[in-house]
Formats: sequence, C-alpha cells, structure tokens
Amino acid sequence: MEVFARRPEITTSADDALKRVAATLEAELKDVEARIAKQASVFDPAIEGYVAYAMGSRGKRLRPLVALLSGGATGPITSAHSDLAVIVELIHVATLVHDDIIDEAERRRAQPTVNARWGNSLSVLLGDCLFAHALNLATSFENVEITRGIARAAREVCSGEIIQTQRRFDLHLGIADYLRIIGMKTGSLFAVAAEFGAALSEADPGTIAVFREFGMKFGTAYQVYDDCLDLAGDERTTGKTLGTDLRKGKLTLPILMLLGAAPAAERERLSDLILEGRTEEIGELLTNSSRGNALHASIDAGQRMIRDAQMSLDSVPATSHLESLVELGGALTAMLDQLR
Amino acid sequence: MEVFARRPEITTSADDALKRVAATLEAELKDVEARIAKQASVFDPAIEGYVAYAMGSRGKRLRPLVALLSGGATGPITSAHSDLAVIVELIHVATLVHDDIIDEAERRRAQPTVNARWGNSLSVLLGDCLFAHALNLATSFENVEITRGIARAAREVCSGEIIQTQRRFDLHLGIADYLRIIGMKTGSLFAVAAEFGAALSEADPGTIAVFREFGMKFGTAYQVYDDCLDLAGDERTTGKTLGTDLRKGKLTLPILMLLGAAPAAERERLSDLILEGRTEEIGELLTNSSRGNALHASIDAGQRMIRDAQMSLDSVPATSHLESLVELGGALTAMLDQLR
Repeated sequence: MEVFARRPEITTSADDALKRVAATLEAELKDVEARIAKQASVFDPAIEGYVAYAMGSRGKRLRPLVALLSGGATGPITSAHSDLAVIVELIHVATLVHDDIIDEAERRRAQPTVNARWGNSLSVLLGDCLFAHALNLATSFENVEITRGIARAAREVCSGEIIQTQRRFDLHLGIADYLRIIGMKTGSLFAVAAEFGAALSEADPGTIAVFREFGMKFGTAYQVYDDCLDLAGDERTTGKTLGTDLRKGKLTLPILMLLGAAPAAERERLSDLILEGRTEEIGELLTNSSRGNALHASIDAGQRMIRDAQMSLDSVPATSHLESLVELGGALTAMLDQLR
Repeated sequence: MEVFARRPEITTSADDALKRVAATLEAELKDVEARIAKQASVFDPAIEGYVAYAMGSRGKRLRPLVALLSGGATGPITSAHSDLAVIVELIHVATLVHDDIIDEAERRRAQPTVNARWGNSLSVLLGDCLFAHALNLATSFENVEITRGIARAAREVCSGEIIQTQRRFDLHLGIADYLRIIGMKTGSLFAVAAEFGAALSEADPGTIAVFREFGMKFGTAYQVYDDCLDLAGDERTTGKTLGTDLRKGKLTLPILMLLGAAPAAERERLSDLILEGRTEEIGELLTNSSRGNALHASIDAGQRMIRDAQMSLDSVPATSHLESLVELGGALTAMLDQLR
C-alpha cells in the first residue's frame, strides 16, 4: 500500500508505463543502446553481422533499465553503470539464442530467430560468443566482486535452465520448485543488475542487499509474466511463437496452479492431457475450470511478487530514479493485467 | 635440431612418450584430477551427474599438462597452477560438448557423447554451465590480467568455431585462413595455459611471451593432428566418430593441401567430390594422388610446427619441467607419425 502512495498516477496501459520509465533515462538508455550496437564490432568481421542481428532485435531492455535505475537511485549514473547494463543484456541475449534452439522457436520480437535463420550450429556458437564476450566485459570492473558476482549469476542462469529442462513433463514439480527454478534462470540476472547498480554507486551493504532483493523478486515476477504470456498472449502482438512451454513439457505457474487446485481424479486426467500434448484442451481449462481461473491466480501471484519487490525498496530514500524503479514494477503489473 | 639435442631418447611410441611426460608430474596431475572431479559438486545436485559425466570421460588432459609444465618450468608449481589447469580443461570440455552437438557426434573417448545420451537441449545448457563455471573460477586469480586473458581466450575459441562453421564447404578457404581459424579455436586456449602458467610463476614478461608462443604453436599443431586423425585414424582405437569433418564440409589441412596441389581441372573434380559428399573417394586421393601424399604433407607441416614451438623455448633455462614440455612436443610428433 505504501508503495502505491509513491506513484502519483495509477498505470492504465503497460506500454505507456514502460515508456514513462524509459523517458526518465533517455540519454542513458541511448548511450547503452549505442554501446550495445558497438559490441558487434569487437568481434571478427565474419561474426559481426550475427552479433548485430541477435543484439539488435530490440527487446524491452528491462535488465539495463534495472541496472541504470538502481545505480541512479543510489548515486549519479556513471559509465560503469552503462557497462553493467550492456553486460546483463548480453548475457540475456546469449541465453535467448540458446533457448530458441531448445524450444525450436521460429520467431522472436517479430523477427526470425537466429536458429531459424542460420541453423542450430551457428546459434550454439553465437550464444557462446555473446556469453564469453559478456564475461570479458565483466572483467573490466575495478571491483573484482562485481566480476565474480556476474560470473556466478551467469552460472545460476544456466543451472536454472538445466533443471527446468530436466524436469519437463515432471508432474511432481511443485510450485516451490518452479519458483526456485525461475529465480535461478531469470531472477538472478535481474538481481545482479540491481545489486551491482547500487554497488557501483558505492551504496552501503544494507542498501545493496535491498536492491538485490528487489531485482530477484522483480525478475522472478517478470518470468511469471513471460510464462503467462506464453499461454495467454497473442502471437501477432508479442512477435514470438507461443504455447511452446506446454508443448515442450515446461510446466509453468498457471499449469501448476491448475494441477494444484484439482482433486486427485481430475489431476490424473489433466496429467494425461499434458503428457498427450493436448495443449488446446488444457488452455481451455486454464481459464474455465470449475476449480477457478488458474491463469488469473497466476497473474495475481505475479502481481503480489511485484508489490513485494516494490516494498523491499521502502527503506531507500525517495529520488526520481527510485520512483522510476517502483514505476517499472507498475508497468509489469499492467503487463500482467493485459493477460487477464 | 637444437631442440632434439635436449631429448636424450628419441620417442618410439606416442603413448610411452605421453606417459613419460605425465609421470614427471604424477602428484600434480592427481591433484588436478581430484579438483576436476570436485567441480561437479559445486553445481546443483540435479546437474552434478551431467557435469561429472562430461568431465570424467578422461581425455589426455593436454591443456592441464601445458599449464602445469609451463608453471614448473618457471618456478614451483602452486595451487594457482592447478586452478589454471582445471579452468582450461573446463573450457575445453565445454567446447567439446557443444562441438558434439554441431557435429552430431555419437561417441567421444569410447563413450556416448552428452548429446547422444541426453539430447541436444541438455547439451547446449551443460556446455553453458561448464563454460560459466570456468569463468567463475577464473575470477579467483589475484592478478586480474589472468582473469581477463582467460575470458578473452574463451571468446577467441568461440569466434574461431563460428568462422569455421561459416566457411564449411567454402572451396575458397586458403591454408592461411585455416591456420588462423585453428589458432583461434584451439591455439588460443593452449596459449593461455602456457602463458599464465608462466605468469603465475611470476616469470618476466619476455619469458611469459615465449611460453605464450609455445602454447599457440603447440596448440595449433595439436589441431592439425586432430584434423589428420579425423581423416586417417582408426575409429576403434580413437573411440570417437571419424570422418565427420569432411562430411560436414569442414575443410582441414590435408584436404586443403590436396586441393592446393591439384591443377585447375582436377581441382574442379575434387571440389565436386567434396560438395557431393563422396568422402571415401576423397579419402583415397589423400594418400594416393599423383600429386603427392596430402596426408603426409600435412603431418610434416604439423611436425614442423611442433619443432617451431619447441625452438621458441630455446632461450628458457633448462629444468626438468622444461624438458618435459619439450618432450610433450615429442609425444605429439609421435602421435602424428602414427597416422602415416
């Protein structure tokens, strides 16, 4: 509740809210974008084009936003913050390139994926290149703890992805397991963006820990959003192949909530539908089960996480960048609302 | 010539020579092996088994040997040298796991590959995990230049692999291009093993550069060996799927030498054989062409590189570890000889 008091207007549209946040950082984001564009040229000319393609298909740049705003909320935004923003985005894009191979996804951000365009072999190697380059850049920080933390987060991300892959079609997966997995695979990168955003501003250890907590919770909520989107989104507006998770046996929050609410007999029937890949019927049940609306319940859970994330910032002195970080939570809340 | 004067006995068998080198470092290699085994436990229990499988299928551990011997040739072998040895092996194994996806290889070191056993998705992610973990360990060095150099080498390795993939079936690939590619994808990791082996012993900059040069040349020669092996080896003794390179359009030194020696008309016919995937006929021509034996010419070239690598160590004061490093070149020479 206290959190909403900070925001003068209630978000009506997700896009507007995101734009409003981005507008408070126009120059800084432009600088990050220019740096991202420049990364391609670090590679051999033979590789440059692929790197530019993978990095260029503009996403929402949420991780850079979190890095910059966390830095700005604790001091002046410096060139080191831009470096951090570039690094987290590079790691993110590297994982996307590899995820798209695994998911056999054909479109991302309304463009053909790297694997759809140049095949799996090149995608495996391009992901490796982006990843290696990100860790290269991470070695440039004076504070070696930041380098270490980024390398650790990169390992967490990969480990989370493996556990997720391993537990496909595992109908014993619980919601706690799910949250742990998405915390590793998505939360940990947001966590370092926020944590080291504050650390680069030389915030005190308590404040740094608060930002880390915000990043972890916000990132986890973002993954809940992304998972709901895969089940409830519109392929034309999202620009990516949807319904992939369930087809591939990735049991995300709405499915786990549907399973969790069902009594034993119904649970068995649902499990059969999942194992037989009857995704359309499951999609129906997500919003239309007699046991409640599992999609809405998941959206609620995501929005609660965002409020939690925002509340963890309560102890931080209010500044305009802090407001923006809270408002970023508002934007994600609105994005989740759009899936209802 | 001066180089051979250093070695009291001429190598008769590759295995014996390798064993002789390894015997001079028995305790240190055991320590490295124990550390490698321990790495699996750093991961989530869900992942541990895969890491243990990938790391455990014992290879020749050549990169660790180069790291330890370079350290020992310039000072006492310390715990930091063991770390370096583990890191270069982890990066190497990460690239093998990804290579096997790309090559659709089914066996490596007489065991099913990770992709053959658990599929491509898990292999993509496991390679990422190993890679991320290696770079994690690399952040533990006090000297940040070593961390940076390892991250740079990792990027070089990936970049070399991409360029190689990109130039499959490219009949305009020259021998200089080939050497540049294998220098990036294989030489650079051997180069950091040798360079930082010496750097961790606090050798002077000139000596460090000499070791780097040795590593780069030795590593490049090793790739020449591996490429010849793929065309001339015996599947039962090597324990891996052979003939893969040519089938996949990877034009390695023997093929490039065969093409280079052929006059225009014959070159065209050879190109057709390559593009049509008639690998058996090409295999025949490698040793049986009227223009000479391209396989033997490639082996000669690899052996010249080894002599070059050994000669670059001429300025380093002789110690038993230096002798062993020179002898490691002898072992590789013998390995090449076995392919004749």
